[in-house]
Amino acid sequence: MVNTKSQPNQFTRTEENSQKITTVLGAGAWGSTLADVAERSDHHVRLWSRRSEESLESVIQDAEIILSAISMKGVTSIIDRVKTIGIPEHAIIVTATKGLDPETTHTPSQLWKEAFPDHPVVVLSGPNLAKEIQQSLPAATVMASEDEAAAEAAQEMFACETFRVYINTDPIGTELGGTLKNVIAIAAGVCDGLNLGTNAKAALLTRALPEMIRIGTSLGASTETFFGLSGLGDLLATCDSPLSRNYQVGYGLAQGKSLDEIIDHLEGTAEGVNTTKVLVRLARQEGIPVPISAQVYRLLKGKSTAQQAVKALMARELKAEFDDDLFDD
Amino acid sequence: MVNTKSQPNQFTRTEENSQKITTVLGAGAWGSTLADVAERSDHHVRLWSRRSEESLESVIQDAEIILSAISMKGVTSIIDRVKTIGIPEHAIIVTATKGLDPETTHTPSQLWKEAFPDHPVVVLSGPNLAKEIQQSLPAATVMASEDEAAAEAAQEMFACETFRVYINTDPIGTELGGTLKNVIAIAAGVCDGLNLGTNAKAALLTRALPEMIRIGTSLGASTETFFGLSGLGDLLATCDSPLSRNYQVGYGLAQGKSLDEIIDHLEGTAEGVNTTKVLVRLARQEGIPVPISAQVYRLLKGKSTAQQAVKALMARELKAEFDDDLFDD
Repeated sequence: MVNTKSQPNQFTRTEENSQKITTVLGAGAWGSTLADVAERSDHHVRLWSRRSEESLESVIQDAEIILSAISMKGVTSIIDRVKTIGIPEHAIIVTATKGLDPETTHTPSQLWKEAFPDHPVVVLSGPNLAKEIQQSLPAATVMASEDEAAAEAAQEMFACETFRVYINTDPIGTELGGTLKNVIAIAAGVCDGLNLGTNAKAALLTRALPEMIRIGTSLGASTETFFGLSGLGDLLATCDSPLSRNYQVGYGLAQGKSLDEIIDHLEGTAEGVNTTKVLVRLARQEGIPVPISAQVYRLLKGKSTAQQAVKALMARELKAEFDDDLFDD
Repeated sequence: MVNTKSQPNQFTRTEENSQKITTVLGAGAWGSTLADVAERSDHHVRLWSRRSEESLESVIQDAEIILSAISMKGVTSIIDRVKTIGIPEHAIIVTATKGLDPETTHTPSQLWKEAFPDHPVVVLSGPNLAKEIQQSLPAATVMASEDEAAAEAAQEMFACETFRVYINTDPIGTELGGTLKNVIAIAAGVCDGLNLGTNAKAALLTRALPEMIRIGTSLGASTETFFGLSGLGDLLATCDSPLSRNYQVGYGLAQGKSLDEIIDHLEGTAEGVNTTKVLVRLARQEGIPVPISAQVYRLLKGKSTAQQAVKALMARELKAEFDDDLFDD
């Protein structure tokens, strides 16, 4: 059912482990929070952003773990820069970015793996609202890699009493849970912004999970990963929280605000806006039905109002569980 | 993935249909709401409770659909009374009760089927907070029966524009989704009552679904039913809403109130309190791990405080996905 390969952290930390050096690239909310978490565990952590005084070269030259929490739009350029500099022979790359590359439709972990085929790449994703983790409220996350030893090393670097880290071997599924749910979070914000109630939102999220699975499995993910913390878990956390920027986008649109106006007032990036465009293009290419994402797309493009999008979704989505005629925009 | 057998209502209603007589037994919040819904569709509806002036005999003697929305503790006695009176030859029984019989651990639909083996029994369950449906907010539900024609007849009786009815052929799975989620709703109330945050609650619900599935499939339900509206959907609606009485029980316990005090102030029955006891007994008999329900049980019995229950759950539940040693109470 759920990820049976998951194993939790055991909190055994040796002298050797505690001397590992982690470099976090990207000092937004999530990068800063992850750097804090690793520091709580007495690891040596460097937090770097484009605005840092230190050079990128100086922070990665002896890093054992390089964690990228760069927003999607900056991922390819940071990869180019890191590739030019080069990274230590045994360095592990961890990616915590949620999004899809507009050009290739690849995930961040795929982009890193393409650039560094000889290095293990680990995905970090889960139901992790940064503000709650900053307050040391309890949370669990997933580290996923085809290289289990690398996932375990990354697990050891970030796990602590209030931040439990499970590992699995489905990086694409783990990453796509966190990525695709951002689109659904926009829909959830619309639902709440229109005061449609808890029954309607529960129905929306229930319908959304199979939509995420259809896209995810077509990209090589395992179905079961979507029923775990990085899929359903992250979907619930994001769609239940006014803290989510993607949710705020949907909520604002439901109140009749323009997308530009909403984005101007957000603290940070709402990755779901870009993800929706890439996802809908991908779904169209592959012929995968994505009724909820398609309506979010129309709304973001200004082709529907929030009310029209919901009405179309209710009429269509409740007419049949699977409906292929989704792209009449 | 989800219930591919589900078919929505088509809103075709003939003269003949509109003359069908439905009797709703139980005039609590849910029974009254369902009677309203059927009336909105211009059906002839009788709402009966023990306090009604009309006799039980008079309301069932020509009913085509008998819908029971009696709370669990009254189900066996109403079945006995209805059995003594007898029901019309082609009458369809619909049960909307969520609970387990303490004596036999059977579900309401099983009890009705045992009493009326020659009549079709349909289960009605879904993400349906009664107060929202009373306000005509949009909602979807499930009618499930081994007899598809009966489910379709019941669907036609209750479906309307704002209350969409899907049918499937897994009555036990549909019923157990609505029943078992009441136990998890108590846990969700505890989580919110202790202000553990959205990340923790998302992790809790993600872990709860496989627990519901383990119990459900051992009782003959299909796994896929739990991923649909009557499983995951109902879990989300209940755990997300302060309107849920079961959630209120958990919330109150987290604030240090006694169970008796909380129950005294509830409007209606919190079925989850009784369901927890029956469920834990059943799980113990069958050797099924139910870590969350087991902690809810300890809390309800006064053997743990809310804090202790959460701590035990965090330590245990996050130690391994599947843990057999759950009943050390």
